[in-house]
Amino acid sequence: MFNFTFYNPTTILFGKDQISKIDSYLPADAKVLITYGGGSAKRNGVIEQVRTALGQREVLEFGGIEPNPHYETLMKAVEVIRQNDITFLMAVGGGSVIDGTKFITLASHYKGDATDLLKFGFNRITNSTVEKVLPIGAVLTLPATGSEMNDGAVISYGNGKFPVMSNLAFPLFSVLDPTVTYTLPIKQVANGIVDAFVHTTEQYLTFPVDARIQDRMAEGILQTLIEIGKQNIDEPENYDARANMVWSATMALNGIIGVGVPQDWATHMIGHEMTALYGLDHAQTLAIVHPALLTEMKEQKAAKLLQFAERVWGITTGTDNEKIELAITKTSEFFASLGVHTKLSQYGIGKDAVDKIVAQLEAHGMTKLSETGKITPEVSRRILERAF
Amino acid sequence: MFNFTFYNPTTILFGKDQISKIDSYLPADAKVLITYGGGSAKRNGVIEQVRTALGQREVLEFGGIEPNPHYETLMKAVEVIRQNDITFLMAVGGGSVIDGTKFITLASHYKGDATDLLKFGFNRITNSTVEKVLPIGAVLTLPATGSEMNDGAVISYGNGKFPVMSNLAFPLFSVLDPTVTYTLPIKQVANGIVDAFVHTTEQYLTFPVDARIQDRMAEGILQTLIEIGKQNIDEPENYDARANMVWSATMALNGIIGVGVPQDWATHMIGHEMTALYGLDHAQTLAIVHPALLTEMKEQKAAKLLQFAERVWGITTGTDNEKIELAITKTSEFFASLGVHTKLSQYGIGKDAVDKIVAQLEAHGMTKLSETGKITPEVSRRILERAF
Repeated sequence: MFNFTFYNPTTILFGKDQISKIDSYLPADAKVLITYGGGSAKRNGVIEQVRTALGQREVLEFGGIEPNPHYETLMKAVEVIRQNDITFLMAVGGGSVIDGTKFITLASHYKGDATDLLKFGFNRITNSTVEKVLPIGAVLTLPATGSEMNDGAVISYGNGKFPVMSNLAFPLFSVLDPTVTYTLPIKQVANGIVDAFVHTTEQYLTFPVDARIQDRMAEGILQTLIEIGKQNIDEPENYDARANMVWSATMALNGIIGVGVPQDWATHMIGHEMTALYGLDHAQTLAIVHPALLTEMKEQKAAKLLQFAERVWGITTGTDNEKIELAITKTSEFFASLGVHTKLSQYGIGKDAVDKIVAQLEAHGMTKLSETGKITPEVSRRILERAF
Repeated sequence: MFNFTFYNPTTILFGKDQISKIDSYLPADAKVLITYGGGSAKRNGVIEQVRTALGQREVLEFGGIEPNPHYETLMKAVEVIRQNDITFLMAVGGGSVIDGTKFITLASHYKGDATDLLKFGFNRITNSTVEKVLPIGAVLTLPATGSEMNDGAVISYGNGKFPVMSNLAFPLFSVLDPTVTYTLPIKQVANGIVDAFVHTTEQYLTFPVDARIQDRMAEGILQTLIEIGKQNIDEPENYDARANMVWSATMALNGIIGVGVPQDWATHMIGHEMTALYGLDHAQTLAIVHPALLTEMKEQKAAKLLQFAERVWGITTGTDNEKIELAITKTSEFFASLGVHTKLSQYGIGKDAVDKIVAQLEAHGMTKLSETGKITPEVSRRILERAF
């Protein structure tokens, strides 16, 4: 097991009717800005529930945070904060809204050019850079990214997607009420399951370091997602299935399964370029890249892929290589069973995309990806060629 | 899955040479009291490492916190704090030292009679009772209780053991360096493994609520402890085995496996009375009571015991009842394989103990134990009769 530091101070309020409890987590005199996305949280009444829970506090709203939240949009919220002396942010939405709100809080009192905050990569922004932030509360409406219980965000700027990480960005609390996700479009539920699955495998399908608890927790999340994935599509109001999905998605990226183990994230980095270039949903890119990457890297990842085959997929017969290949096939079929395509060609994207994506990876310095740094642009090219 | 609230702000610094990192977690002008136990932390140099890491800060020491820490001892530390304007507590030891230090911080600025703080049971003490506490840092020297990453303590007073819980008692940070545990007596290592195992089963062997992640995390801890338990006895300086033990013990009781599920804790409550009456180690009482309790309660717990038999012990043949009985037998044999007795008679304690223990349970209001409240004194009696 590698040495590690773990810290996660977010309070989780999980279950039915939890939105009403947020009152005790905000100062009575908080001046609140509710941030949200395209308006579904308004239409389905969640924002109204939040406003009711906030009682007599002064509340403003900022809507229109788009998927893959854009710097320019977020800076408009920063302006609202500065003009109105906002003291507390309530993010109501999925990963994009919560990610965006994290960037908003980091930028809200930053004295320099806020594009500076996009340049830290995976280095954490500390209070030596950002002196003051506003606390964030979140009400999750789309289980997927884990943003509700971590310190990271991905922000779009120009044609790039930039990771932003800071202990200052942890939500103070997040409400996870599975029932508010019942009205989600099926496509978003499917995307969320794929996202949580690949978040888990990015921290698990690497090389073994004898981290037994972490491995078994990752396997537990993957097994759970496989068990309840299709049920979440077919029975959107099945509380237990949805509750397990919500908690799986949060646990997949709150840091706990990733302590002391190598991490990959190459699927995400390649996928980000696809989203930036072709507008594919984040999870769609993961479902395309991940099986191709696992196949390309199956020698480097052999020990963990075999463990994945045996423990997660229950594959007990065949050679090691056969088990590994079957596990990758089953993973791909699982994504497809949720209605998420696993090939670029299924989106009508042609092979010229390979050069374009590789060029963007190079432009963004993504030239030594994966847990070993061995995914060079040439290897990314081979992965992409497998993705048709 | 039940509704739940989860909060755990403790920073974990895990691995080799982590003690040196604590400097950045204390104010430069902190006036530190190091709390410790019988002196092994002094003899093996851990306290010296801590003092080095604390640099130029003013440091006092308070030793002699005993196993099952006593109120009277802890109040002497409170006196030292008040007389010396201590601002930070560094607990160096196992669960008893850390538990004791939690009580010390809660009592340090409490204005009333500190025995008040023993009367809250499982209700959390809030800042409406205790206005001010000192932050706690911990260096764990004995993996077992999980106290290094939770908000609970058990304090001895008179002939009782009293739970004390408070969000104010979470350590600010805890250092988990497996190498500082190499010199532990084998008996303490064995006790730690039993303690972590039963902490896990208290949150797992109840009744099913379709909490799939929590179940699989609990199973992962149990499987890990079974795999690496004996190795930790036989190869005390095997880093990977010890690291997995340390992290298992912390994860078993940092709250994460217990969210949204029923919890039992009857084994602990009955065991506490045995420790108070007969001076048995905490883990020794668990190894005696737990198999007897599981046997007595096997109908109430049948669904989860069957899952435990199949997933944790890999028992695939026999009737359900046979699987369950074999799983309980294997659990008992596992404790015994570590050198921990599983019968009261092995400690020379006679059957007159049954009446005495039941009387103490009644005196302490422990009359409706377990996840269903169905362990009355009469059921406790039957459990104890099985424990010979």
